[in-house]
Amino acid sequence: MFKKILIANRGEIALRVIRTCKEMGIKTVAVYSIADKESLHVRFADEAVCIGPASSSLSYLQIPNIIAAAEITNADAIHPGYGFLSENAKFSRVCQEHNIKFIGATPEQIDGMGDKANAKATMIKAGVPCIPGSKGLLKNLEETYKIADKIKYPVILKATAGGGGKGMRIVWKKEEMEAAWDSARQESKAAFSNDGLYMEKYIEMPRHIEIQIAGDQFGNVCHLSERDCSIQRRHQKLVEETPSPFMTKKLRKEMGAAAIKAAKAVKYEGVGTVEFLVDKNRDFYFMEMNTRIQVEHTITEEVINFDLIKEQIKLAAGSKISGKNYEPIMHAIQCRINAEDPYNNFRPSPGKITEYHEPGGHGIRIDTHVYAGYTIPAHYDSMIAKLITVAQTREEAILKMRRALDEYIIEGVKSTIPFHQKLMVDEKFNAGDFTTAFMDEFKF
Amino acid sequence: MFKKILIANRGEIALRVIRTCKEMGIKTVAVYSIADKESLHVRFADEAVCIGPASSSLSYLQIPNIIAAAEITNADAIHPGYGFLSENAKFSRVCQEHNIKFIGATPEQIDGMGDKANAKATMIKAGVPCIPGSKGLLKNLEETYKIADKIKYPVILKATAGGGGKGMRIVWKKEEMEAAWDSARQESKAAFSNDGLYMEKYIEMPRHIEIQIAGDQFGNVCHLSERDCSIQRRHQKLVEETPSPFMTKKLRKEMGAAAIKAAKAVKYEGVGTVEFLVDKNRDFYFMEMNTRIQVEHTITEEVINFDLIKEQIKLAAGSKISGKNYEPIMHAIQCRINAEDPYNNFRPSPGKITEYHEPGGHGIRIDTHVYAGYTIPAHYDSMIAKLITVAQTREEAILKMRRALDEYIIEGVKSTIPFHQKLMVDEKFNAGDFTTAFMDEFKF
Repeated sequence: MFKKILIANRGEIALRVIRTCKEMGIKTVAVYSIADKESLHVRFADEAVCIGPASSSLSYLQIPNIIAAAEITNADAIHPGYGFLSENAKFSRVCQEHNIKFIGATPEQIDGMGDKANAKATMIKAGVPCIPGSKGLLKNLEETYKIADKIKYPVILKATAGGGGKGMRIVWKKEEMEAAWDSARQESKAAFSNDGLYMEKYIEMPRHIEIQIAGDQFGNVCHLSERDCSIQRRHQKLVEETPSPFMTKKLRKEMGAAAIKAAKAVKYEGVGTVEFLVDKNRDFYFMEMNTRIQVEHTITEEVINFDLIKEQIKLAAGSKISGKNYEPIMHAIQCRINAEDPYNNFRPSPGKITEYHEPGGHGIRIDTHVYAGYTIPAHYDSMIAKLITVAQTREEAILKMRRALDEYIIEGVKSTIPFHQKLMVDEKFNAGDFTTAFMDEFKF
Repeated sequence: MFKKILIANRGEIALRVIRTCKEMGIKTVAVYSIADKESLHVRFADEAVCIGPASSSLSYLQIPNIIAAAEITNADAIHPGYGFLSENAKFSRVCQEHNIKFIGATPEQIDGMGDKANAKATMIKAGVPCIPGSKGLLKNLEETYKIADKIKYPVILKATAGGGGKGMRIVWKKEEMEAAWDSARQESKAAFSNDGLYMEKYIEMPRHIEIQIAGDQFGNVCHLSERDCSIQRRHQKLVEETPSPFMTKKLRKEMGAAAIKAAKAVKYEGVGTVEFLVDKNRDFYFMEMNTRIQVEHTITEEVINFDLIKEQIKLAAGSKISGKNYEPIMHAIQCRINAEDPYNNFRPSPGKITEYHEPGGHGIRIDTHVYAGYTIPAHYDSMIAKLITVAQTREEAILKMRRALDEYIIEGVKSTIPFHQKLMVDEKFNAGDFTTAFMDEFKF
């Protein structure tokens, strides 16, 4: 087992890793920017090294500084957390070269999964369902009809140079294709000076459901069930839960098997997540694979009584898994409490926390790096805390979340607590009736 | 179900009950003494009524004030918490007379269990193992020999008027009896002007292990496994855990069955606890039955995923239990964090908490009513918080407790955190090798 782990991250995830290391008897090294010198991860680590100024490009993203900190402190492994360098193939490679174990994916795995086209090709070859569509650019309308017939309507035309919805057309039936084709090309040409289009099957009412997996160095992979992360705003997850209210035993078995296939296709080691879109018919499609621990790993831990960071460290050190899969025995929900003003378009609200009081009691978990008197720097993400409730049923977990949110006192900065309070009494959310489009219609 | 529950208590247990009521959609009424007006239980309840000055005899023990508060606020039930009026037969009866449901035992059950001689007789009749001994005073040495032969050595002679160990002799074998008999009588006579002696079997290396039970109004009783509360100081529990490191599957089955017998013998309704002494041979003896929720109910909740307060309220409202027993699937430990100075004979240390920061993360639960700026009154017990860790194994729960204690910051008052830190690295504690005498030898 490792003797000393450097945590190349900040905030709650740095603290999260330090906590597990302490419980495993492993020494820890924190790294921090000048803006983070009062952070709890600095206080609770055995050693701490300043790696640069506030800007993350000059500190948390500075590979040489982090490697130097690891060498000075004689750390034999680096845990990258999430974000920053956690899925940086170069960092993973430099760690290898310096004989420091990178607790995450190999450079090859990161590269393989980071390039979307490459990843999709690998998944199709491995038999993992992907969103069907044209292979590259559409040549002409005739070919477009053919492919659409094959992948079945509705389909979506997308500008190859596109973004922000421009040059994008949903086509519900054959009769609409010609007009959509013409207008999408014109719009693309006008917007991007490029009228190239490609086509995909249009996923109706998609849910974002991801499967947690774990793989060892001997080729064994297991899955640890799903997390439903459909409640998103601009692709930022706000609330996660497990089990998904949309899940069935059959679907979990199928998605679990597909996630294991995906992991085996890239010989995945460590903990990772395979993200899928699931449509209204419970057909599911590979989106991407995250080769790191995720913000929402907590809810999986709560429903299967499992420390995922511990597992991640053990797997990096060469431990074996049984290959047995894990089913949720409870229901857990996580609300991301951010320093943002939900009444003002979720504008970040950094600053000093003047009063801070956490909810507590049965079925409540809080992961946070803040405290009364702590100043949230403007340089990083705005997460204050992850508030997790766990109960025997979804209904109870929601009721528990409501009372926990009511108890939570954070003064000095705006927080997203009022948003979560409103969401937790929303009829559609309570019915489990939501897709990734939920936030487009949610009135706040 | 009840519409509004008055909580006739203060501190963490008042908050604990309020939390569950909120999750059940039941309105709550807090009562408070003048000393508690800044308490969280007052802030988080839907209504709050001041019931008197700081002294508990004039407030939390004042039955008329509490009943008046319930009538004014139209509460249809009263939860008494633990301590105060929770096992007061008169209070239970007055509630009945005022048509307010007392969420606890009936006056008859409280009376039946409160009188120790009476309770012992009931238990013997029901076939629950009790500590064998003489029926009342020993007549002479001859009779004493006879009884000792029957209940088997070692035995203990006790002064009927005794206390503080005076007139008490452990007799390991027959040959020692005559000398012990003479000296115990002389000592008793000198100390209490009364040389009456009685005899009990001497329990070697006893552990305090209790069984949580739940009974409904239809005669069904189940047990929810044990809690080991052997780590005590002057009969005050300091640390509790479940499962007991001394437990076996066979012993749990036997003790569970005995606890169910005990509960059925008094037609027990609601949640309760049957306390046993367990000797080194795993023979166990009934001590007493607590007809209320206990401070340490939390650890049972953690290992069986069960809200005991919710269950208690539901049972009081007439719900049925299946009769199925519950086995622990995890290991939980609770440290009672008290405002006491462990370096100074655990002297109470009331006062203002100037800084307060809780540990968090995976497997941590905290039940507390305090916050930064809160003043712990000198009038009540000194508990600051219950810190609970839960993990897959005892070893992991202890490791987690160590790191949680290290993170816990309480400034302004002395706390028992340093004591718990020392206990958690104690070799004997870690080996599970302890009895109720543990604290007599524990060097701090």
